[in-house]
This record gives sequence, C-alpha cells and structure tokens, in this order.
Amino acid sequence: MTGAECLLRTLVAHGVDLCLMNPGTSEMQFVSALDRAPEMRGVLCLFEGVCSGAADGYARMLRRPAATLAHLGPGLGNALANFHNARKARSPVVSIVGEHSTAHLPYNAPLTADITAFARGVSCWIHTLARAEESGEMTAAAVRAAYGPPGQVATLIVPADFSWSDGGEPVEGVSAFPNAAVPDARRVRQAAMIMNRGSRAGLLLSGGALLESGLVAAGRIAAATGARVFADRFAARLTRGGGLFAPERIPYFPEPAEAALAGLEDLVLVEAEQPVSFFGYPGRRSTLAPEACRMHTLATPAEDGTAALAALAEECGASPAAPHATCDRPLLPGDGALTLDAIGRAIGALLPDGAIVSDEMVSSGERVLPWLAAVRHHHLPVTGGAIGQGLPVALGAALACPDRKVVALEADGSAMYTLQALWTMARERLDVVTVIFANRRYRILEIETRRTGAGEIGPRAAAMMDIGQPDLDWVKVAEAQGVAGERTETAGEFVDAFRRAMAERGPRLIEAVLDR
Amino acid sequence: MTGAECLLRTLVAHGVDLCLMNPGTSEMQFVSALDRAPEMRGVLCLFEGVCSGAADGYARMLRRPAATLAHLGPGLGNALANFHNARKARSPVVSIVGEHSTAHLPYNAPLTADITAFARGVSCWIHTLARAEESGEMTAAAVRAAYGPPGQVATLIVPADFSWSDGGEPVEGVSAFPNAAVPDARRVRQAAMIMNRGSRAGLLLSGGALLESGLVAAGRIAAATGARVFADRFAARLTRGGGLFAPERIPYFPEPAEAALAGLEDLVLVEAEQPVSFFGYPGRRSTLAPEACRMHTLATPAEDGTAALAALAEECGASPAAPHATCDRPLLPGDGALTLDAIGRAIGALLPDGAIVSDEMVSSGERVLPWLAAVRHHHLPVTGGAIGQGLPVALGAALACPDRKVVALEADGSAMYTLQALWTMARERLDVVTVIFANRRYRILEIETRRTGAGEIGPRAAAMMDIGQPDLDWVKVAEAQGVAGERTETAGEFVDAFRRAMAERGPRLIEAVLDR
Repeated sequence: MTGAECLLRTLVAHGVDLCLMNPGTSEMQFVSALDRAPEMRGVLCLFEGVCSGAADGYARMLRRPAATLAHLGPGLGNALANFHNARKARSPVVSIVGEHSTAHLPYNAPLTADITAFARGVSCWIHTLARAEESGEMTAAAVRAAYGPPGQVATLIVPADFSWSDGGEPVEGVSAFPNAAVPDARRVRQAAMIMNRGSRAGLLLSGGALLESGLVAAGRIAAATGARVFADRFAARLTRGGGLFAPERIPYFPEPAEAALAGLEDLVLVEAEQPVSFFGYPGRRSTLAPEACRMHTLATPAEDGTAALAALAEECGASPAAPHATCDRPLLPGDGALTLDAIGRAIGALLPDGAIVSDEMVSSGERVLPWLAAVRHHHLPVTGGAIGQGLPVALGAALACPDRKVVALEADGSAMYTLQALWTMARERLDVVTVIFANRRYRILEIETRRTGAGEIGPRAAAMMDIGQPDLDWVKVAEAQGVAGERTETAGEFVDAFRRAMAERGPRLIEAVLDR
Repeated sequence: MTGAECLLRTLVAHGVDLCLMNPGTSEMQFVSALDRAPEMRGVLCLFEGVCSGAADGYARMLRRPAATLAHLGPGLGNALANFHNARKARSPVVSIVGEHSTAHLPYNAPLTADITAFARGVSCWIHTLARAEESGEMTAAAVRAAYGPPGQVATLIVPADFSWSDGGEPVEGVSAFPNAAVPDARRVRQAAMIMNRGSRAGLLLSGGALLESGLVAAGRIAAATGARVFADRFAARLTRGGGLFAPERIPYFPEPAEAALAGLEDLVLVEAEQPVSFFGYPGRRSTLAPEACRMHTLATPAEDGTAALAALAEECGASPAAPHATCDRPLLPGDGALTLDAIGRAIGALLPDGAIVSDEMVSSGERVLPWLAAVRHHHLPVTGGAIGQGLPVALGAALACPDRKVVALEADGSAMYTLQALWTMARERLDVVTVIFANRRYRILEIETRRTGAGEIGPRAAAMMDIGQPDLDWVKVAEAQGVAGERTETAGEFVDAFRRAMAERGPRLIEAVLDR
C-alpha cells in the first residue's frame, strides 16, 4: 500500500479517526486513501486555522487527538495561531503536513519553504519522513508524542514521494497510552499540611483537574480545611455550574487578580504554573500572587492532578462530597436594551444542561459568564490568546460531542479571523449556535491602551480600534456560508432568537448588536 | 520620545509612510504615535494575512516597502502565508512585530511564543530590539534590509517596554538606497554571443526585467537575433498588452512547459532562476528546459536586469524599438453561457488601459488571460503559491496606485482564505473590482490528483475538493463587509456588471457562477 494509505491506516489503528483538512496537490494521495479507509472521517475546512482550532476543540472535549492535514509550509503557517492555542491548552493533535517530493525539493519551486521552521514555534515533536517505509512507524510515534503527557501538537512532515510510493504495512495500535503519573505520597502529605493552614493557603487547578472529579475533590478539601481554590483562567476546559464546586477564576487584569490572591502565603499548583498576568505593564510585576507567597507543586502538567486531589482529600480527612448545592437559573430579562447582563441572563435561563460553551467574548465575558452558574456546562476559554479560537474550537467540540448543544460566545473582532468555520458547521450540519457580541470595535484595545501608558487615544489611533465604518453584517456572513443568521437589537429579540436556537438543532448565528 | 514614536518617525524619514496593521496590546504605543506623526498612514486590516498580502501588492507596484504591524507570534503566524508570497516576489516589506516586555517574557504568559522561529521561514533579516535606544538605528537597518537588493521581508521584533520607554531621536533617512548592480560588460558580451545563435537560444526574464523598459529591450534583442524570450510565470509583476513586446509565459504544467522550451540549447537568465515545475510528479524530472540546455546568468535577482537588457540590445546591434504593433480588443461576447472565454472577452473589451490585474484564478487563468492582450495593464500573478494572495495584493496595489483601476481575478476557493480584505477595501473606498470565479470546487486538485498517481477520485476524496454543499454566496460575503456585490450567471449579465464596475469608482464584487 502507498505510504499515504499506511499513514492513514496507522492513524485509525491508534484511535485517530477524524482528520480536519485543507489539502493541496502534495496531499492528494492521503485524500485519495480516504476511500479505502472508511473508518477515517475527513472534514474539509476552507482555511487551515479552522482545522487547527477544531482539532484543539475536539481534543479539549475527548482528550484524544484528531489529525490535521495542511499543504506545505504556507498551509501550516495559516494553522499556527490556533496551534499556538492548542499548545497552551495542552491539546493532543497530530499535525500532518505535506512536503514537496524529495527529488523536487532542491529546486526551490514557488511553494518551497522551511516547514520545520514554521512548525518549531508550536511543536516540540517534529519529524520529516526519511523514507516511505517508515510511514507507519513514525505515524505511530507522532500519535504517542501527541498524547504526551502533557498533550502536544506533534508534527509529521510527509514528502509527496513517500506518499505515493510503497509504505509497507500499517502499524497496529497499542492497547492503551501511558497514563499520567500519580504524584507520590510525600507530595500529597506536604500539600495536606499546607491546606491545613486554612484561608492563607490556596490550590490552583489547571488541566484535567478542572473537570468534574477534580473539582469534587477540591470542594471536599476546601470544606475540610478552609483553603481557597482557584482556577487557571487559561485552562483548556472547566466543568462548571449546576451546583458543582466552583473554584475562583483568577481575573484577567492584574489589579483584581492580585486582589483575589491577596493574603495567600502558600499556593499549591495542580497541573498549573504560577499565575502571571496576560501582558506586562509599565511599573507592574508579572506575577499575581503576593510576593512572599510560596509556590508548591502537587502535580505538574504532566501528572494526574485529579488523582492527586482525590488523595489529598483523603489525607486532609475530608468528608465525602456533600450533595450538590444547586442555585437557581436567572429569570429571563425583560425587553429593553440589549446589554451584556441581558444576554447573560437569557443564556443562563435557556442553555441546556451539558452544553459546551466556547468562549472568545474578550471584553464582554466578565459580565456574561456569571449568569451561567446554575447550568452544568463545559467552558472552553481562551488558552493561548491567539485570536480566532472561538468558532473553530466550537466546531471541533461539536464534532467530538454530536449530542451536546455547542454555543460559541464570540466577539465580533475575534470572529473575523476564522469566520470560515461557519461553512464547515453548515456542511457537517453541526449543532452549534454562534452568538456574535457586536460592539463594532476592538474594545479590549481601548482599555489596554491606557494601561500601557500610551495616553489618550487620538482620532487616528481610535480608527485602528474601530471595526465599524463599515459595520460588519453578521447575518450575511452566516448566510453566505449556509448558516441561518438573525440580528437582535433588543433583549426581547435576543431571548426569542436564543430560545429558538436552543429548541432546534443545526448551526445558526445570532448577532447581538450591543450599545456602543 | 518613546521608542515606538522613534520607530514610526524613522520609518517615515526613510520613505515608509504606509502601515498595514492588526495591532494588539503590545503595539498600542505604536498606534498611539500615529496621532503625532501624521505622515504615516495607518490602514487597519481585520486579519494579518491581509496586511502581509497588501504590503506585497504595494511593493510590487511601487518597488518600495510598506510596513506591517502584527501582534506577537500568533499575529505573525497569520501573516506568514502572504509573507511567503512576498518573499518569492522579492517584495521589500518592513514587518514590525510586537513582543511582550522583556520583564514579562520569562513568565511564559499565554501569548508567549518564539517569534523568531515564526519569522525564520519568511525573513532572512530578523532583529529583536535589545534596548529602546536602538529603535531608530535598527528601524533604519530594517528598511535598508528590506530594499536588498533583492527585496525581502525584514522583521523587526519590538518588546513592549522598548516601545513605552525613551527611544531617543529618529534616524534621518539616507537620500537614496543603493541601486542594484549593473552586470559587467563581459557577461553582456557573452550573452550577446549566445543570442546570436537565434531560436536555439532563449532569454528568461523575471523581477524588474518584466516591466516596460526591460520588455522593450528584450523585444529589440529578439528582433535582432531571433532568440526567444520567456517570462518567469511566478514573477512579481509583468507589464502586458497594448502592443508591448510579449515574452512567452512558461505554462504551469510540466508537459506544455517542456514543449514550450523544447529545442533550446542555451538559456540566459535575467533576474531569474532556472525554470522548474510547480510540483514534482512521479517519474518526472523537476526542470523544464531540455536536459542538455546550458544555463547562463546575465543578471542575478540582486542585479539590474533592465540595464543589462539595454546593454545587451546594444551589444547585439539591435535597432531602436519599432512602433508598437497594437492588436485589437476582443468583441464583447454575445449573451449565453458564462464561460471562461466569455469572461475573458468581456474583461479584454472593457478593462481600462493602465489597470492592475491581481490574478489568483488558479485553474481558470489559462482561458482568461489571453483575451487581455490588447490592453496595457500590470499583471500581478501568483508568486509563492500560498493561497489567499489575490485580494490582499489587489488591496495593496490600490493603496499604492489610487488612480488606477484594480481588478482582482480570483478563484472562489482561494478567495476564502483572506476574504477579510474586502472590508478594508470598503473602509478605504478603494477602486478595486473583484471577480470571483465560482466553480464551487478546488478544480486544480481534481486535475492534480490524477497527476500524482493517486488514481480515480472516489466519493469521499471528491468531497474534499468540493466547496459547494453548501454553495458560498459571494454577494453576501461582499455585502457583509460593506462592498457592493452582484451575481452573474450568463455572459450578458457579466458584461453588464463588469461594464458598470469599470464606469464607476469604488469597491465592488462580481460573482461569476461558472457551469459545473
């Protein structure tokens, strides 16, 4: 069989059965092999950044890799921003990149580029196939590398001649990938001693520790010791709501973040790194915990924080989890101005349990998210800060979990970077509802300008943060790509539109025009 | 003054007075300085690939650099595909990339990435500011590096603290950048001896040699010696039509390319490299000229091929240029099916002299371009093959040449990668008419699949080349971004729409729905 087919079949044998692709000539053997390996689902995206972001969303939900397929260096280039986010999310992804045939490469044809250089910023594991016969072996190695732990983007570069020549037989899958290591008892005992200091001690959770089991254990620890529990703001996924123990999410800006962490003398990290601010600012330090606060590691990002928390709860003598203290959903907003609170109330009232929320609201998020506290949902926040994450991550989450409602809460500025995701949602008939927060400006930049000491915003600078003039018409953006769209300008209109969207299946977009 | 203002003023002092930007927090000092340096025009793009492609288009027309401004590694990542094209076009560009403040960088905040790694694939000149005080000096160095020759993408990475602290005074511009060297008389004499072998000898032109002066000289040489003259298919710009001497453009696929070059015993390169095929294929060599054909260099890409051609014409004893032999414009097509020939005829009949044609038609181009031969125009073809070039290059060309009509001839698949260019065309009220060739598939891939030996295209593979289901609605894509759009499905409708577009100013889009 060809190297391409061997590669594809090895992926399938290792449980990688989804490939998000934007192929070109050098990948046609791989595409052709789809018809001989029906276990592999190929999903076409019209821009590579959609592929990489969707693979990230898929991995965040299933904690196993999808493959991506990109065409040579420039194709990979388009995928890099969302691979950066995937890297920060520690999402396992197998990134397949086609390359010119080895005989053609020395001739510096137009598409020739240093693919390894493109990959280096997002991948620690990069391999260029050296011969067709290693297709199976190195594909298996790429899948193993993607799993980590922690998960990562593993890049396999495939010269075209190794796709079209004989690649031998596929490599069978291993029965299970190694589990993350469980921290030893000494670290658990040390953490328990710290927890017993009460409210001057904190736990900071990230990675898998923010899913249900980890949160239940953390809640038991907090109840037993009085220690405080924080969530990494930039983690891949947070299970939230419906009475589940809710850690404090560290605020975005450094002043409230420092206030939230004030008084801590010890912070125990669970799959987390020490908290730092998103940007540096003149005259401010980058760390957020009090300067005298000691950092301890219960579990590294490569270890099993959930198991560590369970052991820690036992060590602390914590009681079994108390019955969930549920809170009530908000009342629907009355009709009136379409404020962020009104949107938050509507979503909090109508979102079905078990939904997935892809969040790239940027400046709108702080006012919306608290309203969702009564609903059990999976929150997929910004991880790496590369703009254009929200729609592709929602797409990938919907491919991973076809039976869950997916809601993308998305700023208008951010949505423009990877708007091509809507087309794939339409083609695959995915149950994704996109809400565009249309404030028609890069509001976060208006805020940040003042913070960087750049002074008052003059008219020419203001124009660079103003994405009105002309206003984007999001209904047309959606309809152009086969997604039903609707514009809402009052709270009542939004409630009606969102209610219908929750009641029906299939992709749709709601533009929420915010007061400027 | 701040480092950012010093940087900006140094750019202006060196003649760089356009900045295509998609800024973020770390670049706010630069944005703020726009209000203190009104000589710099800031143009906002909603995706970084539009910035890089527009800088390429600008440089192709004016042969001097614009600046681009991107936000950290991921922002640069989004710009890479079109920087790849700019690199292959040898376009001078000054790429400014913001970086975290030096104090913040060690903390591995979410947006932290290896910017140099991202830049390496497209830039030979990369410098990270080491202190604020070198802002002026290193900005001047970046501009010089961008000019080359040959032109290149010079990347200057600017930590935020060097933007907000005192950067000293701007560096004054040099009065002129060094001209490309003129090849010496020995090489000219050698080339003349080869030319005198007649039709077994050829000249291959690229770079600046494809503009009017170079073509006039090449035409004189051909008339005097009978030597054949070829155009690099992937050059940055070709002046064409209206009776100007027309070199043979080397075909895309290797079989017709080899046929076009058959019989050559010597090929003299003028700012060109030896011709090679775009992709490698099983059992085919990569070079296109006959295997025995000797390669000679009259002018390297770093040298002045136009001056070399003028000298060569004298050395060959060529007569002064003959009066232009003009040919007639095609007749308008009658109404009927909207074929590629009908579109070509309509454009050839109606395009104004002096227009700029940005060409990313991909599989449609061969049938359309010949009809434009009677009109003097500037043809901006695909250079590096990274998809998504056409609309941004058209945007940049329109910023460079506001008094010329710009027509983007664009495949539907390719247009999706950087469709955000339309918004900036609307905002800046640029006179760009985009024609979308909507065949609703990646037609080139259907052709290439067979060529790579991948055999018959099965239904699952075919789906990966089919960008219908759902069909894209290009009128809505345009209107969503403030550009007037119109769908045409017959030759008559296309003629009417294109005629109106030529008669009026301002951005518009015509979707040409092709028979499938």
